[in-house]
Order: sequence, then C-alpha cells, then structure tokens
Amino acid sequence: MDKQVEPSKKSAYEEAGVSIGAGERAVDAIKKVVASTKVDGVVGGIGGFGGLFDLSYTSAKGSVLVSSTDGVGTKAYLAASLKKYDTIGFDLVAMCVDDITVLGAKPLFMLDYLSIGKLDPAISTEIVTGIALACKEVGAALLGGEMAEHPGSMPDGHFDLAGFVVGIVDGSEIWGAHKVKLGDALIGIGSPNLRSNGLSLARKIVFGSSDMHELDAKSQVEFQSIAQMPFDSSTVGETMLEPSILYYPAVSKLVGGGISVHAAAHITGGGILGNLNRVLPPDLSAEVEISSWSVPPIFTFLQERGDIELNEMFRVFNMGIGMVLVVDKDEKLATVDLLQYLGHGAYEIGSIVEGDGRVKLR
Amino acid sequence: MDKQVEPSKKSAYEEAGVSIGAGERAVDAIKKVVASTKVDGVVGGIGGFGGLFDLSYTSAKGSVLVSSTDGVGTKAYLAASLKKYDTIGFDLVAMCVDDITVLGAKPLFMLDYLSIGKLDPAISTEIVTGIALACKEVGAALLGGEMAEHPGSMPDGHFDLAGFVVGIVDGSEIWGAHKVKLGDALIGIGSPNLRSNGLSLARKIVFGSSDMHELDAKSQVEFQSIAQMPFDSSTVGETMLEPSILYYPAVSKLVGGGISVHAAAHITGGGILGNLNRVLPPDLSAEVEISSWSVPPIFTFLQERGDIELNEMFRVFNMGIGMVLVVDKDEKLATVDLLQYLGHGAYEIGSIVEGDGRVKLR
Repeated sequence: MDKQVEPSKKSAYEEAGVSIGAGERAVDAIKKVVASTKVDGVVGGIGGFGGLFDLSYTSAKGSVLVSSTDGVGTKAYLAASLKKYDTIGFDLVAMCVDDITVLGAKPLFMLDYLSIGKLDPAISTEIVTGIALACKEVGAALLGGEMAEHPGSMPDGHFDLAGFVVGIVDGSEIWGAHKVKLGDALIGIGSPNLRSNGLSLARKIVFGSSDMHELDAKSQVEFQSIAQMPFDSSTVGETMLEPSILYYPAVSKLVGGGISVHAAAHITGGGILGNLNRVLPPDLSAEVEISSWSVPPIFTFLQERGDIELNEMFRVFNMGIGMVLVVDKDEKLATVDLLQYLGHGAYEIGSIVEGDGRVKLR
Repeated sequence: MDKQVEPSKKSAYEEAGVSIGAGERAVDAIKKVVASTKVDGVVGGIGGFGGLFDLSYTSAKGSVLVSSTDGVGTKAYLAASLKKYDTIGFDLVAMCVDDITVLGAKPLFMLDYLSIGKLDPAISTEIVTGIALACKEVGAALLGGEMAEHPGSMPDGHFDLAGFVVGIVDGSEIWGAHKVKLGDALIGIGSPNLRSNGLSLARKIVFGSSDMHELDAKSQVEFQSIAQMPFDSSTVGETMLEPSILYYPAVSKLVGGGISVHAAAHITGGGILGNLNRVLPPDLSAEVEISSWSVPPIFTFLQERGDIELNEMFRVFNMGIGMVLVVDKDEKLATVDLLQYLGHGAYEIGSIVEGDGRVKLR
C-alpha cells in the first residue's frame, strides 16, 4: 500500500482535507492481514513502488496472463449506509477473480483501489481485511493497493472500491466459444444473492432513490426503518448486502477432478442474457430453461416491489445463477454432483442448440 | 471494456440513473483507440471477460511480474471543473507506469477504472483516448477497463480515475536499495509541473477549497476568474492541469544505451523526502542539494500564495524533480547528457553518502 506517511503535526495538507496521520494508521492496520495472503511467487523486501511476483516460483502453469478490473458498483454505498464494511471485499474479489475463472485461469494476485472522502482507519481496515480474506480463499496474493483520500468527494463513511486481478492459463486450455459444441450441457452454479451488480436499481426499488446524496440526506430513521424490515430470516438491508460467492475454488476442483469445462460465463451486469452470449459461437445458441432452478426470494421481492418486467430482471440481475459452465453432456451429472458436494447450488439449466449466437430463455 | 450493452428502450434500470445507451455509445467510441495500443503478446478474439497477454509472444525478458495501482487523485476534479478531459489519461499512465519504471521493469499492459456519476460518452471517450495515447508512448497495451456509472455519486462531468499496470523484469536486474553504493550520483529528471499529487492542497490554495461539492457550488464566474488568471504564458488552471511527463521511454533508452541504473525513485506524494528514502540501504543517506535545479514557477507560486513552509512543499510536491536515478558516479555525465538529448531536464542533484537511510536536503 503506497499511501505516503509523514509526520503528524497539523500541516497545510491536512487542513486541505488529507489526513496524513489517518493514512499512516490505516496502512499500519492492514499490513498483517495483507501479509497473510502471501503465496509462492511473491517477492518481498524489495521496492515498495510496485508489487513483485516471480512466475518461476509458482506452481501455476502456462504463459498467458489473464487480467480483469471491476468495481463493486453502488453496493459500496449500501455498505456505507448500513455501516457494515467487512463483506464488501468478498464482492470485490468475486467480481474480479470470477471474470478470469471463466477463462480457465488460476488467479495469482490482486490489487485494490479504495477511494474515500474522509479516511477512517477503522473503516478502511475492515474493507481491506475482507479483501485479504477473500484473496486467501482463492489463493491469490494481495500484492498492492492504493488508498486515496479525496476530500469532500463523498459523505463521511462512503467509499468507492475497485480491484485488479492477474491470473495465468495455458494458451491451449483457454475456455471459450471456440470449445463449445452442439449438445453441450449448461450447468448453473447458484447465487442466493445479488452479487455486486444491479444495486442502483435495487436501491431505488427498496429505498426510493439510487442517488447517494439524496439517500444520505434522508433521515437515518427512515432509511433504517426500511433496511431493518424482516426478510427471509434476516433483514432487507442485510440480504441486499450479502457477500458474493467466490466460484473459483469450486471450479478449480472440478478441473482437478477431471471435468473438462468448454466455456463459462460469469453472470454479472447484463444477466444471463448479456453474459452467456459471450461464449457462444455464431451458429449455436444457448437454450436456458428458467424453471430449472428456484429464483431466490430477494429477486422476486425486488421484481414485485419495483413492478419490473421479468425480461428486465433477467438483464439486470443474476436471478439465482452466478456462473454458467458449458460442459460435455456426458459430464453434466458428475459436474452437478461435485458442485453440490462442495456446497453449491448446481442445476442443469439447458443446453447448446443450433442457432445464432444468442441466449434463449424458455 | 466490459460495460454491458443492452437495448435502448427506457428501462427501470435507466430510471434508476444507469444509462445503458450511453454506456453502449461510450464503449463503441473507444474501441478503435484501445485497439491501437495492441503490442506483441496481446491475444485477441477470445473471451471478453478478461484481457489476455501471452508472455511467449513478447520480446520482454524476465520472469518477475511487477504491478502497481494508482489514481490521479483530485486532479480529476480540476479536469472536470475546467472541462478539459484529454490529458488526465497521461497522468494516470505516468502514475502507474513510472512506479514500475523505477524497479527496472518494462510495462506490458494497463487496465483502467473510470467511475463517473453520469456517463457522457463524449467525456469518457476523451479520457480513455488520453489513456490509450499514453499507453502507446510507453509501449503498453490497454488490455481492459471498467466504466462504472454511479448515479448521484458526483456532480455531472466529475469522475474518479484509477489504473493498474503489469510489467516484467529479470529477477537479477531489479533496481533498488540492494544495488545502491557509497558515492553513487543522484540524477534528477525534470518535472515542469505538479504531476498528479498534492492537488487537494494546490486546489485549496488557489481556489480557496479542496471540497468538490463546495467548489462546484461556487459560481462558475468566480471559479473561472481564478482559473483564467495569466500565468507563465498560460493560465493558472491550465498550468495546474498540465499532464505528467512519462519517464519510462527515456529511462529505457538509458538502459539500452548501456547506463547501469542502481535504483530509482518516482517522486509523487511525499515528495523527494518521502520517496527517495525508499531506495536507501539503512547505512547510507542521500544528500540532495536543492539549489542544483530551478524550482518551476508553479511551485513557488503555490508556496507564496498558500504561505506554505519550504519543508512541507518538499513533502507534498515534486518541486521540479519527477524522478531520481541512482547511478554510478562514473556514469553521471553520460546519464545527464542522454536525458538532455532526449529532451528532458536533467540535473546532478546530489550523491549517496554514509548515513542512516534518510534523505537530507541541503
């Protein structure tokens, strides 16, 4: 973390809103948890300007680097409104890492970018601790990051969070449309919650506005009275904020167990319609039977409360399927069994048919 | 760029402030300029969830990946206030790439994260075009990015911009404190402007506030009357917004020309005092003679207008030196000559002496 540390007397810089002491404490607080994500390949003790990862010391095979960047969207604002900062890091890692999981890659390291109006070491420590714990779950090192304090850019407690991941894959093993065959089975892996997209719409439906400042100006009493509404053995607010499931560990176990995945799609913004199409060759389609899994209650709640058309629901939200794997039809049962054994919801949701490169919901 | 594209009818999602049509146009507009950054190693035509870079097709040597993430800080807010979006991408690439330049690495690819309150394709295209042009200057591919629209998070036209770079270096050639020797020369490379740090303080000094919303609420007449003040053959606003110099091209030419750099420091937040110390062994110090270069007018202007102590100026701003190279004393003249030949200000600013791991300004 290359936030600069400087002496703690009140300087002109601090009077301009950049708290150097807070930055120093924030960096100290996360050092240990960041260090705990170390994996083979991480080079310590040199530099500090950049993070070092030596490919010759990792067991990962291949020569193709796969990278992705994503943010947690306005789920960050919900976390800030609910003053709950310990799970958003899982959303960040899921958004980034599972974008490369679907190419067959193994994640090597992550970096995070945390932008915050007023740096509060207690808050940034909770956020970064969540990122580090999620990195450990997928075996990626948290190799670096930036905490940027932007005075007056957001109400106190609010933040924006983005991440970057680098993974590796053998060039001949990259999954994608080029491996998808007629008759392949579509296996959906369950997502009981929103993951980290569609939150602007969800927040508008539930709280009446998606505007951060408008919402912040509402009385806490009014906001909390909605957030605390009982929902499915929890509350509406907590259910909306549930952390994303990380799919990489299970998918890597499938591969380790001999399942040959042809392609995979991470279901984020755009839903199944806007993501599964990205792994279809132009002459094939994906036929998805939407009755083959149960849509989790949070989605039907949002649909009814917001009076949203089903088609739009499927374009904005994951509707209960966070990842779709395309596998040989002979391996579909083994895939479902192993995923269920690993504790995931897993469903045969359709198949690859002749078509035009598009997804068809039935 | 994995911003999702969807049909353009006005949906509930759009009513929640996320403009899908604008996202689609924004992505289309940047495709060509992003493609122009392609270098050997970039794998196209597969995936779309992650960016692919095949190390076996690049001429870059080594097995150690070097990565860094950084943002442009509140220089983004100045750009938005001045409605000038075409140069901030150079600041982003400079902040990220020159953090790995100082380790001796060659940049391979960048990804960017653009967070914006209300997506305006004209604005995002200018920003990303700047990033792509800067990537071309350093020979890095712009391999991916995210445009995130966060309704109500910022006034229209405002944005936050972060980036992420991956480079490569041979493990035995990594520069740093372990290579620094007693008697080594310190060569400063000139920065005629602020680069991309200290802008919160600079904006407060010049415009009376560093708070984005406070500034935005001021009348444009008042803001512009200050921004348009003549300064050094330009205006105050334009001078503060001048893009950062990219040092990688010149530094790589030094190496190609046979200069053996021992260590280097990128002078960003923390100034010379807070950055050059990062490449000092515990028993040596860096003695810097501050009269060995001319401090550019923007820094003296800020110091006088803000009544800031010189010591603090050197801790917040680069004061005219954007990078310090530590080279063998026998190579100092050749280093200065080659840098000047390449069009950079270059100065022998001091030397490595016995000491305690700290920087001493004289």
